[in-house]
Amino acid sequence: MAKPRLAVQSRFWLTAGKVSLAGRGRIELLERIDETGSIRQAALAMGMSYKAAWDAVDAMNRRAGAVLVERKTGGSRGGGATLSSRGHALVELYRTVETDHQRLMDQLNQKIETLLKNGP
Amino acid sequence: MAKPRLAVQSRFWLTAGKVSLAGRGRIELLERIDETGSIRQAALAMGMSYKAAWDAVDAMNRRAGAVLVERKTGGSRGGGATLSSRGHALVELYRTVETDHQRLMDQLNQKIETLLKNGP
Repeated sequence: MAKPRLAVQSRFWLTAGKVSLAGRGRIELLERIDETGSIRQAALAMGMSYKAAWDAVDAMNRRAGAVLVERKTGGSRGGGATLSSRGHALVELYRTVETDHQRLMDQLNQKIETLLKNGP
Repeated sequence: MAKPRLAVQSRFWLTAGKVSLAGRGRIELLERIDETGSIRQAALAMGMSYKAAWDAVDAMNRRAGAVLVERKTGGSRGGGATLSSRGHALVELYRTVETDHQRLMDQLNQKIETLLKNGP
Protein backbone atom coordinates (compact mmCIF):
# COMPACT_ATOMS: atom_id res chain seq x y z
CA MET A 1 0.00 0.00 0.00
CA ALA A 2 1.13 3.57 -0.64
CA LYS A 3 2.33 5.43 2.41
CA PRO A 4 0.85 8.94 2.37
CA ARG A 5 2.88 11.49 4.23
CA LEU A 6 1.89 12.03 7.85
CA ALA A 7 1.68 15.53 9.25
CA VAL A 8 -0.07 17.54 11.92
CA GLN A 9 -2.71 20.15 11.28
CA SER A 10 -4.04 22.53 13.85
CA ARG A 11 -6.71 25.16 14.31
CA PHE A 12 -6.48 27.90 16.93
CA TRP A 13 -8.70 30.58 18.35
CA LEU A 14 -8.50 33.26 21.02
CA THR A 15 -10.34 32.81 24.28
CA ALA A 16 -11.40 35.35 26.89
CA GLY A 17 -11.58 33.77 30.31
CA LYS A 18 -12.98 30.35 29.52
CA VAL A 19 -15.03 31.21 26.44
CA SER A 20 -14.11 31.38 22.78
CA LEU A 21 -13.57 34.99 21.72
CA ALA A 22 -12.50 34.97 18.09
CA GLY A 23 -11.16 32.68 15.41
CA ARG A 24 -10.20 33.43 11.85
CA GLY A 25 -13.71 34.40 10.69
CA ARG A 26 -14.41 36.87 13.45
CA ILE A 27 -11.00 38.50 13.07
CA GLU A 28 -11.64 38.90 9.35
CA LEU A 29 -15.00 40.46 10.22
CA LEU A 30 -13.26 43.01 12.47
CA GLU A 31 -10.75 43.80 9.72
CA ARG A 32 -13.49 44.33 7.18
CA ILE A 33 -15.39 46.59 9.55
CA ASP A 34 -12.17 48.57 9.89
CA GLU A 35 -11.78 48.76 6.09
CA THR A 36 -15.38 49.59 5.22
CA GLY A 37 -16.47 51.54 8.31
CA SER A 38 -19.69 49.53 8.25
CA ILE A 39 -20.93 46.30 9.83
CA ARG A 40 -23.37 45.94 6.93
CA GLN A 41 -20.65 46.27 4.28
CA ALA A 42 -18.36 43.93 6.20
CA ALA A 43 -21.14 41.33 6.46
CA LEU A 44 -21.85 41.64 2.73
CA ALA A 45 -18.19 41.16 1.85
CA MET A 46 -18.09 37.98 3.93
CA GLY A 47 -21.38 36.54 2.70
CA MET A 48 -22.89 36.81 6.18
CA SER A 49 -26.25 38.23 7.13
CA TYR A 50 -26.20 41.59 8.89
CA LYS A 51 -27.76 39.91 11.92
CA ALA A 52 -25.05 37.25 12.09
CA ALA A 53 -22.34 39.91 11.83
CA TRP A 54 -23.98 42.07 14.45
CA ASP A 55 -24.45 39.10 16.80
CA ALA A 56 -20.76 38.19 16.37
CA VAL A 57 -19.69 41.77 17.15
CA ASP A 58 -22.00 41.90 20.14
CA ALA A 59 -20.68 38.58 21.47
CA MET A 60 -17.08 39.74 21.04
CA ASN A 61 -17.75 43.04 22.81
CA ARG A 62 -19.34 41.21 25.73
CA ARG A 63 -16.77 38.43 25.96
CA ALA A 64 -13.79 40.77 25.69
CA GLY A 65 -15.26 42.95 28.44
CA ALA A 66 -14.48 45.88 26.16
CA VAL A 67 -16.00 47.67 23.21
CA LEU A 68 -14.10 46.38 20.19
CA VAL A 69 -16.46 47.88 17.61
CA GLU A 70 -17.94 51.31 18.15
CA ARG A 71 -21.07 52.39 16.38
CA LYS A 72 -21.11 55.92 15.03
CA THR A 73 -24.42 57.66 14.59
CA GLY A 74 -25.24 60.62 12.31
CA GLY A 75 -22.86 62.20 9.80
CA SER A 76 -23.33 62.50 6.08
CA ARG A 77 -23.29 58.72 5.57
CA GLY A 78 -25.83 58.12 8.32
CA GLY A 79 -23.51 56.47 10.82
CA GLY A 80 -21.31 53.43 10.64
CA ALA A 81 -18.92 51.42 12.72
CA THR A 82 -15.28 51.66 13.62
CA LEU A 83 -12.77 49.57 15.53
CA SER A 84 -11.80 50.88 18.92
CA SER A 85 -8.14 50.82 19.96
CA ARG A 86 -8.95 47.60 21.83
CA GLY A 87 -10.44 46.22 18.62
CA HIS A 88 -7.27 47.07 16.73
CA ALA A 89 -5.13 45.55 19.49
CA LEU A 90 -7.12 42.31 19.33
CA VAL A 91 -6.69 42.00 15.56
CA GLU A 92 -2.99 42.69 15.91
CA LEU A 93 -2.65 40.12 18.70
CA TYR A 94 -4.43 37.52 16.58
CA ARG A 95 -2.16 38.13 13.57
CA THR A 96 0.94 37.88 15.77
CA VAL A 97 -0.33 34.63 17.29
CA GLU A 98 -1.18 33.34 13.80
CA THR A 99 2.39 33.86 12.58
CA ASP A 100 3.83 32.21 15.67
CA HIS A 101 1.34 29.37 15.52
CA GLN A 102 2.29 28.65 11.91
CA ARG A 103 5.99 28.69 12.77
CA LEU A 104 5.44 26.28 15.67
CA MET A 105 3.38 23.92 13.51
CA ASP A 106 6.14 23.98 10.87
CA GLN A 107 8.62 22.99 13.60
CA LEU A 108 6.34 20.18 14.72
CA ASN A 109 5.96 18.91 11.16
CA GLN A 110 9.72 18.93 10.67
CA LYS A 111 10.05 16.89 13.85
CA ILE A 112 7.43 14.41 12.62
CA GLU A 113 9.32 14.03 9.38
CA THR A 114 12.50 13.31 11.29
CA LEU A 115 10.77 10.84 13.61
CA LEU A 116 9.25 8.97 10.67
CA LYS A 117 12.56 8.86 8.81
CA ASN A 118 14.25 7.27 11.82
CA GLY A 119 11.21 5.27 12.88
CA PRO A 120 10.01 1.78 11.99
CA MET B 1 -16.11 46.34 32.28
CA ALA B 2 -14.07 43.42 33.58
CA LYS B 3 -11.17 42.33 31.40
CA PRO B 4 -11.16 38.54 31.14
CA ARG B 5 -7.78 37.04 30.44
CA LEU B 6 -6.99 36.48 26.77
CA ALA B 7 -5.34 33.27 25.69
CA VAL B 8 -5.05 30.96 22.73
CA GLN B 9 -6.61 27.52 22.46
CA SER B 10 -5.86 25.02 19.78
CA ARG B 11 -6.93 21.66 18.48
CA PHE B 12 -4.71 19.41 16.40
CA TRP B 13 -5.04 16.21 14.42
CA LEU B 14 -2.83 14.01 12.26
CA THR B 15 -3.26 14.02 8.52
CA ALA B 16 -2.20 11.48 5.91
CA GLY B 17 -1.57 13.16 2.60
CA LYS B 18 -4.31 15.77 2.50
CA VAL B 19 -6.94 13.99 4.56
CA SER B 20 -7.55 13.86 8.29
CA LEU B 21 -6.22 10.62 9.75
CA ALA B 22 -6.76 10.74 13.49
CA GLY B 23 -7.52 13.15 16.29
CA ARG B 24 -7.85 12.53 19.99
CA GLY B 25 -10.92 10.28 19.73
CA ARG B 26 -9.51 7.93 17.12
CA ILE B 27 -6.20 7.61 18.94
CA GLU B 28 -8.08 6.74 22.12
CA LEU B 29 -9.99 4.13 20.12
CA LEU B 30 -6.71 2.56 18.96
CA GLU B 31 -5.40 2.54 22.52
CA ARG B 32 -8.53 0.85 23.80
CA ILE B 33 -8.37 -1.76 21.06
CA ASP B 34 -4.81 -2.40 22.19
CA GLU B 35 -5.92 -2.72 25.82
CA THR B 36 -9.00 -4.87 25.26
CA GLY B 37 -7.99 -6.82 22.14
CA SER B 38 -11.45 -6.15 20.75
CA ILE B 39 -13.04 -3.48 18.59
CA ARG B 40 -16.38 -4.23 20.24
CA GLN B 41 -15.01 -3.79 23.77
CA ALA B 42 -13.17 -0.64 22.74
CA ALA B 43 -16.36 0.80 21.20
CA LEU B 44 -18.32 -0.03 24.34
CA ALA B 45 -15.75 1.66 26.58
CA MET B 46 -15.99 4.81 24.48
CA GLY B 47 -19.77 4.88 24.18
CA MET B 48 -19.58 4.35 20.42
CA SER B 49 -21.51 1.88 18.34
CA TYR B 50 -19.56 -1.08 16.99
CA LYS B 51 -20.27 0.16 13.47
CA ALA B 52 -18.87 3.62 14.18
CA ALA B 53 -15.74 2.10 15.70
CA TRP B 54 -15.31 -0.29 12.82
CA ASP B 55 -15.84 2.49 10.26
CA ALA B 56 -13.23 4.61 12.04
CA VAL B 57 -10.72 1.75 12.04
CA ASP B 58 -11.44 1.02 8.39
CA ALA B 59 -11.01 4.69 7.45
CA MET B 60 -7.72 4.89 9.35
CA ASN B 61 -6.38 1.70 7.72
CA ARG B 62 -7.24 3.07 4.27
CA ARG B 63 -5.97 6.59 4.87
CA ALA B 64 -2.73 5.48 6.49
CA GLY B 65 -2.10 3.16 3.56
CA ALA B 66 -1.27 0.53 6.16
CA VAL B 67 -3.06 -1.92 8.40
CA LEU B 68 -3.14 -0.26 11.83
CA VAL B 69 -5.60 -2.71 13.36
CA GLU B 70 -5.40 -6.40 12.55
CA ARG B 71 -8.36 -8.68 13.02
CA LYS B 72 -7.65 -12.07 14.48
CA THR B 73 -10.01 -14.90 13.73
CA GLY B 74 -10.51 -18.09 15.66
CA GLY B 75 -8.88 -18.93 18.98
CA SER B 76 -10.59 -19.70 22.26
CA ARG B 77 -12.14 -16.24 22.51
CA GLY B 78 -13.47 -16.34 18.93
CA GLY B 79 -11.18 -13.76 17.39
CA GLY B 80 -10.46 -10.16 18.23
CA ALA B 81 -8.35 -7.27 17.12
CA THR B 82 -4.84 -6.10 17.77
CA LEU B 83 -2.72 -3.11 16.87
CA SER B 84 -0.07 -3.72 14.24
CA SER B 85 3.41 -2.26 14.75
CA ARG B 86 2.31 0.59 12.46
CA GLY B 87 -0.72 1.10 14.68
CA HIS B 88 1.51 1.28 17.76
CA ALA B 89 3.85 3.68 15.95
CA LEU B 90 0.93 5.96 15.05
CA VAL B 91 -0.31 6.11 18.65
CA GLU B 92 3.22 6.84 19.85
CA LEU B 93 3.66 9.56 17.23
CA TYR B 94 0.38 11.18 18.26
CA ARG B 95 1.32 11.20 21.95
CA THR B 96 4.73 12.73 21.15
CA VAL B 97 3.08 15.40 19.00
CA GLU B 98 0.52 16.03 21.76
CA THR B 99 3.23 16.74 24.33
CA ASP B 100 5.08 19.05 21.94
CA HIS B 101 1.89 20.76 20.87
CA GLN B 102 0.97 21.48 24.49
CA ARG B 103 4.45 22.86 25.16
CA LEU B 104 4.27 25.12 22.10
CA MET B 105 0.82 26.40 23.08
CA ASP B 106 2.13 27.14 26.58
CA GLN B 107 4.93 29.17 25.00
CA LEU B 108 2.43 31.04 22.86
CA ASN B 109 0.25 31.82 25.87
CA GLN B 110 3.24 33.11 27.79
CA LYS B 111 4.02 35.38 24.86
CA ILE B 112 0.43 36.63 24.76
CA GLU B 113 0.61 37.43 28.45
CA THR B 114 3.81 39.40 27.90
CA LEU B 115 2.36 41.24 24.89
CA LEU B 116 -0.76 42.20 26.85
CA LYS B 117 1.27 43.35 29.84
CA ASN B 118 3.29 45.68 27.65
CA GLY B 119 0.42 46.56 25.30
CA PRO B 120 -2.20 49.30 25.36
